[in-house]
Amino acid sequence: MVSQELEDAFHPRSIAVVGASGNPASMGYRYVYHLIHNGYRGKIYPVTPHWSEILGFKAYPFLRDIPNTIDYVICCLPASKVIDLLMECSAKGVKVVHLYTARFSETGREDSVEMETELLQRARRCGVRLIGPNCMGLYYPREGIAFSYDFTTEPGTVGMFFQSGGACVEFIHQAFLRGIRFSKVISYGNALDLNEADFLEYFSHDRETEIIASYIEGVKDGRRFLHTMSQVAPLKPVIILKAGRGGAGARAVASHTGALAGSLKVWETAIRQTGAIQALTIEEMLDIVTSFYFLPPILGTRVGIVGGGGGKSVLSADEWEEAGFNVVPLSPEIEDEIRKRLPELWWGWLRNPVDISILPEDALINNFGGEVLRMMAKSPSFDLLIANISVSAPFANDELAAYLSKEVDDIIDIVRNEPKPLAVILDTGALNIQDFDHLRWRCLAELKSRLVAAKIPVYSSPSEAANAIIRLVNYYRRRKNIRSY
Amino acid sequence: MVSQELEDAFHPRSIAVVGASGNPASMGYRYVYHLIHNGYRGKIYPVTPHWSEILGFKAYPFLRDIPNTIDYVICCLPASKVIDLLMECSAKGVKVVHLYTARFSETGREDSVEMETELLQRARRCGVRLIGPNCMGLYYPREGIAFSYDFTTEPGTVGMFFQSGGACVEFIHQAFLRGIRFSKVISYGNALDLNEADFLEYFSHDRETEIIASYIEGVKDGRRFLHTMSQVAPLKPVIILKAGRGGAGARAVASHTGALAGSLKVWETAIRQTGAIQALTIEEMLDIVTSFYFLPPILGTRVGIVGGGGGKSVLSADEWEEAGFNVVPLSPEIEDEIRKRLPELWWGWLRNPVDISILPEDALINNFGGEVLRMMAKSPSFDLLIANISVSAPFANDELAAYLSKEVDDIIDIVRNEPKPLAVILDTGALNIQDFDHLRWRCLAELKSRLVAAKIPVYSSPSEAANAIIRLVNYYRRRKNIRSY
Repeated sequence: MVSQELEDAFHPRSIAVVGASGNPASMGYRYVYHLIHNGYRGKIYPVTPHWSEILGFKAYPFLRDIPNTIDYVICCLPASKVIDLLMECSAKGVKVVHLYTARFSETGREDSVEMETELLQRARRCGVRLIGPNCMGLYYPREGIAFSYDFTTEPGTVGMFFQSGGACVEFIHQAFLRGIRFSKVISYGNALDLNEADFLEYFSHDRETEIIASYIEGVKDGRRFLHTMSQVAPLKPVIILKAGRGGAGARAVASHTGALAGSLKVWETAIRQTGAIQALTIEEMLDIVTSFYFLPPILGTRVGIVGGGGGKSVLSADEWEEAGFNVVPLSPEIEDEIRKRLPELWWGWLRNPVDISILPEDALINNFGGEVLRMMAKSPSFDLLIANISVSAPFANDELAAYLSKEVDDIIDIVRNEPKPLAVILDTGALNIQDFDHLRWRCLAELKSRLVAAKIPVYSSPSEAANAIIRLVNYYRRRKNIRSY
Repeated sequence: MVSQELEDAFHPRSIAVVGASGNPASMGYRYVYHLIHNGYRGKIYPVTPHWSEILGFKAYPFLRDIPNTIDYVICCLPASKVIDLLMECSAKGVKVVHLYTARFSETGREDSVEMETELLQRARRCGVRLIGPNCMGLYYPREGIAFSYDFTTEPGTVGMFFQSGGACVEFIHQAFLRGIRFSKVISYGNALDLNEADFLEYFSHDRETEIIASYIEGVKDGRRFLHTMSQVAPLKPVIILKAGRGGAGARAVASHTGALAGSLKVWETAIRQTGAIQALTIEEMLDIVTSFYFLPPILGTRVGIVGGGGGKSVLSADEWEEAGFNVVPLSPEIEDEIRKRLPELWWGWLRNPVDISILPEDALINNFGGEVLRMMAKSPSFDLLIANISVSAPFANDELAAYLSKEVDDIIDIVRNEPKPLAVILDTGALNIQDFDHLRWRCLAELKSRLVAAKIPVYSSPSEAANAIIRLVNYYRRRKNIRSY
């Protein structure tokens, strides 16, 4: 039933932004702006006694003045005014209220904690469900609902519930750069009413969501959360970042969402048993989500690696092996094929990882590395292929651009024609503004655009890729074992 | 004495590029180009019987035809012709030859291994020292000597010796983005003659070098290397990346530089005892070098963290604590000062890490976070300050740019006026080419440029920064203990 309430919240025929404002530097303005800008097709009602019109929409002094039903309310009022609003919502038949409003239990003040408790009691009595308080609310690209700037309306398959709005915004922007898109996102703050267990349950049933990711500071309903998790984890990958792990973190959690961080050991053990995937940082979570978003199930650890020079090959061998992969030798068939194609390398110097810098000049320029990658793609000896983009080739920028473009052409062609999982390592650099005009960095960014457009996962380093993709392998192995019982 | 030979190699009055070429797609062309392009002021002599002139410089058919002394030779000849060249070098009085030439022991072929052995014997007999074979050679910005494109001539204090040329090129390009500059760099490949112990000894005495970084696949002279390391590590930080750590890595090392990867356990223990700092990846090494390059010695672990929202604050607390730092509470003096400046936050809600999203709107806009950072900078309660750039603020791009610009102004002002070590966390994103035109990413790249220009270390994430800077703290603590014996 909670899932149905959330489903309704994601599909409102009308939204009222209460505490709306004509001041562009206020959230009361921004929520109205985001609805318009993202093409929300339901009715938009700014509510404020201080403005007659906001962004071309008539503003109503109070909720009760709206000559229509209201399905969903975004509340930007100060904390002291929220309880009265709930009464109005009740009278108006509003089912779900998102409280952007903050300054409740997270302040640590007794009066604020009391106000929050009263808020919950009042909401229950009024039959209104709450998202928040102290949160950014919903992002649902299909409906044109968003809570920050430059959120695309193009939908995807990642469903998220984040206790932190800021971490959520940051994650979404970084994920966009990887080509990841979202089904639905919930920033839920203090989790006073609807909580992590409700959201997890909702996403477990949501057909638009194939991957679930969550940032959690403290759980409100641990037992149900773990139970739901153990149900959903074998069906959809769930990636969880538990924040507030140490003493300082737990204190920070109290100030942020008023949650109890709880015992980390108990949490980790319980979560591991459910089969959920744990991440320790936003960056790690992004790499793991990238893996699940673009790669199919992988059950083996035999990795074939091509590209870059000798140092990159040696480090790749180390980093993939250390993460748990098996950097297997080239199969006799591939060795034979290399001998046939490049007789001058008859004695088997070329190995896995394939160091392209040892190729004869002609073979290098014609991207023979890509040919070996293709052989690997057709071979049953590999479970996963890695293309290291050869950014360190000692070419001038125009030569480098032409060469790497051929490398990427071949990668995209292989991915289109062979069903083998493939990931790319390409560090486009942490750029300064003057580097935007530099041919080297423009070239790498162009390559990345093409790879992302071809739906290929791109990682900055071998270790980040390896440590993310091994989670995917372990996840699908566990899932297979569970199902084969 | 070896150090003097290397010193001479870095200061040649004349350089001959043997196997030079007019073909821009050859290294025989590129080495001549790099010398000209980087403003090398000594004499440049292309040597080849196939061209009469290269890039405006007269080409000589053979070394002996040059009507002048030659201090240093860059050799791009095929492997089979190198031994004859050494005879000519001897006759001409050349002291050091850099062999870009490859295809020796790294091929694994018996005849190539034999040729390499003969090469060494011949070099010894001729009194010629060798760098390489199978390497990129020297980068010395002060002299205008370089081995790849877009290497700046602006000098710095990092001295490096890398067994892999490609890893070296990649590291240098990434380091430039951080604002790091180099004293001297040696890419040394197979280490047939001059080896890692020679280079380490050289950098230990080199006055232009304050930080030493090295990528090593296998050591040739382990005893002397470790002895030298134990001498130099207490004087200059030495950061070492040992590649070829596992089975696949060791095989890759053999194909790359013909080195024996050796026992990892023995290596790690021995290196740790010398006080050198070990890195596992290029990315980690870059973060550690960044720390030593920009931060002064730090002996304590009390960190003060400001900026970003609640999620960033919680995660920062976790990640800094997990790395070994102490996220201490705000001192009573700072709490008093906050109360004085912001009476509405009288009850001590604002903590360390300082979550700026809980500030009253005016205080937020006027960057009160920067004020707290300044208080921390003046306080004896903190050993290190971290500024999280507030990239997730829910502002429109123009507002965000103005706000973050103020944040960065304040950071730069604090760094200029207070002696407290400070580092910045700013993820500028792995950009696609279309993101170059996007205000959000342009803004972040502009901020990074300003921070880098102000010589402030910038890291992509809290965990990367924390794990790098704790190495610096541990290094200086160890050094202090050694010295106080």
